[in-house]
Amino acid sequence: MAQKKVTIIGSGNWGSAIARIIGNTVVQHSTTFQTRVPMWVFEEMVDDKKLSEIINTEHINVKYLPGKDADILVFVVPHQFVEKLCNQLKGNVKSSAVAVSLIKGLSGKSTSSKLRLISEDISETLGIDAAVLMGANLAPEVANDNFCEATIGSKNLATAIELKKLFHTDNFRINIVQDFQTVEICGALKNVVACAAGFSDGLGYGDNTKAAIIRLGLMEMMRFIEYFYPNTRIKTFFESCGIADLVTTCYGGRNRKVCEAFAKTKRPLYELEAELLKGQSAQGPFPLFEAVHNICIGQVPVEEFIGKIRNHPEYEDRSNAEFH
Amino acid sequence: MAQKKVTIIGSGNWGSAIARIIGNTVVQHSTTFQTRVPMWVFEEMVDDKKLSEIINTEHINVKYLPGKDADILVFVVPHQFVEKLCNQLKGNVKSSAVAVSLIKGLSGKSTSSKLRLISEDISETLGIDAAVLMGANLAPEVANDNFCEATIGSKNLATAIELKKLFHTDNFRINIVQDFQTVEICGALKNVVACAAGFSDGLGYGDNTKAAIIRLGLMEMMRFIEYFYPNTRIKTFFESCGIADLVTTCYGGRNRKVCEAFAKTKRPLYELEAELLKGQSAQGPFPLFEAVHNICIGQVPVEEFIGKIRNHPEYEDRSNAEFH
Repeated sequence: MAQKKVTIIGSGNWGSAIARIIGNTVVQHSTTFQTRVPMWVFEEMVDDKKLSEIINTEHINVKYLPGKDADILVFVVPHQFVEKLCNQLKGNVKSSAVAVSLIKGLSGKSTSSKLRLISEDISETLGIDAAVLMGANLAPEVANDNFCEATIGSKNLATAIELKKLFHTDNFRINIVQDFQTVEICGALKNVVACAAGFSDGLGYGDNTKAAIIRLGLMEMMRFIEYFYPNTRIKTFFESCGIADLVTTCYGGRNRKVCEAFAKTKRPLYELEAELLKGQSAQGPFPLFEAVHNICIGQVPVEEFIGKIRNHPEYEDRSNAEFH
Repeated sequence: MAQKKVTIIGSGNWGSAIARIIGNTVVQHSTTFQTRVPMWVFEEMVDDKKLSEIINTEHINVKYLPGKDADILVFVVPHQFVEKLCNQLKGNVKSSAVAVSLIKGLSGKSTSSKLRLISEDISETLGIDAAVLMGANLAPEVANDNFCEATIGSKNLATAIELKKLFHTDNFRINIVQDFQTVEICGALKNVVACAAGFSDGLGYGDNTKAAIIRLGLMEMMRFIEYFYPNTRIKTFFESCGIADLVTTCYGGRNRKVCEAFAKTKRPLYELEAELLKGQSAQGPFPLFEAVHNICIGQVPVEEFIGKIRNHPEYEDRSNAEFH
């Protein structure tokens, strides 16, 4: 069997960190993969904020589309670039190719009644299978080759095993699961919980409070995902994409830092990605998610944060039937 | 029905913090509880390190045993005092009384084939039911009335509900579960994982690595508990006694701090409680637990820590059957 061609469609710290890993694994598994890996780097213009340049690190003509002859397409670009990019690639990828998305977020096509995943956008637009890779992976630490883990979610076992080969190294440990929806959605929702953790830090609370918030956040993540995907598996939350990524993001992530600063200084929160709850009913079973949203849009003062979660449904008296 | 008499048998920061909570709840629920709560404080002598004094904060004669007329006995003393204390109390407590243990650790009667819980020591010696309360509760933060959570584990629903009344406040949120063994063992095992987290910190790794270690530790906690208690419930790990306490301890706990200092300075580890793995086979399915033990007893240099968990069974290729 011919070696498979891997192409990285990437940008930023995370794209660079993962390119370094792939650069090593393709050499290590040179009977499986071609050792030449083109990386398409997307740069945003500073002045007009538009996706405007495509720089290929291997100096291939920019009119030549990425992915045309790729067997494995690694997507690691900001989520707002995905739709345009996939429309450009449409009809120009091998039908046997597979994609793997490292993009954290949800598709803009999501509604309050139906979640839409970025991997689904990729898969449907290109007509190929799309897996995901998520985990506790702060990019600078991965670039520094610190020991860490990630989870690959893929419907297809053979794809999962092949992708594990492409990413698994001594310091980047991969587990594979089939429940790709949970893997992917965890990667989006953790950022909401990290905002809550940042509020707690900014309000001067300690590790007890933050642990309680992380736990409540995890419970809401589970219920949220179960609502849209009743077949979600509880075991997936124990993978790196679940609790580990959540903990990392709640201690080391950018959202936490921004929200801590917000609680301390009341500076505006333009930086925050609040897309997740956009258009969604701001009521009901997700008080922590809801509180984060309402604080971020300025409707609720951050001082009321703990008050909003104190009577979380988690603390309701449990009937005999629910006492487990 | 007569109000129930609560007695605290306590010591240290944690005993004082919990006494403050109980002092408030008994007043709030004065139809359920007597508002006068004796607290028996155990002080260790500084010179001979022996349990040598019993000081009753209400100046009752020290020959009068604590608990004689108590309906609820709250145990919050160091684990090494429990056996002696229970032998003193034996035959002197109401047969209708219940105990609740806040003690983190395992009974010295544990063997490698059978775990023995501290709550079981209390229950069997005194001939009464014993519940447990565990959670993400660093004592100084609880004393400071920071928002946090805890889990009550009790075989008996009525006991659990009554105990919830005794501990649940606006800033100390209680959930109850029946799976008391998991609740109690989580409180002991987390300290082993916190050592691992401390090694990682001391070796200079960042949040990714620590999250991976916390996750591997949690997986080992689950498998360890499942080995001794096959009926353990996965949901219990999502309570405060599970992931939340683990995260708190791995970021804010004393074991983490000591082990970080150890990895940095190689100072002796007298402070560390290594009882858990004492006498246990240092082989097999718990590489993280085992590495912590071997580093702590000086058999393995801390620099080899990541090497010991890199090939953790968690990363083994999963067959189709296990791909979930």
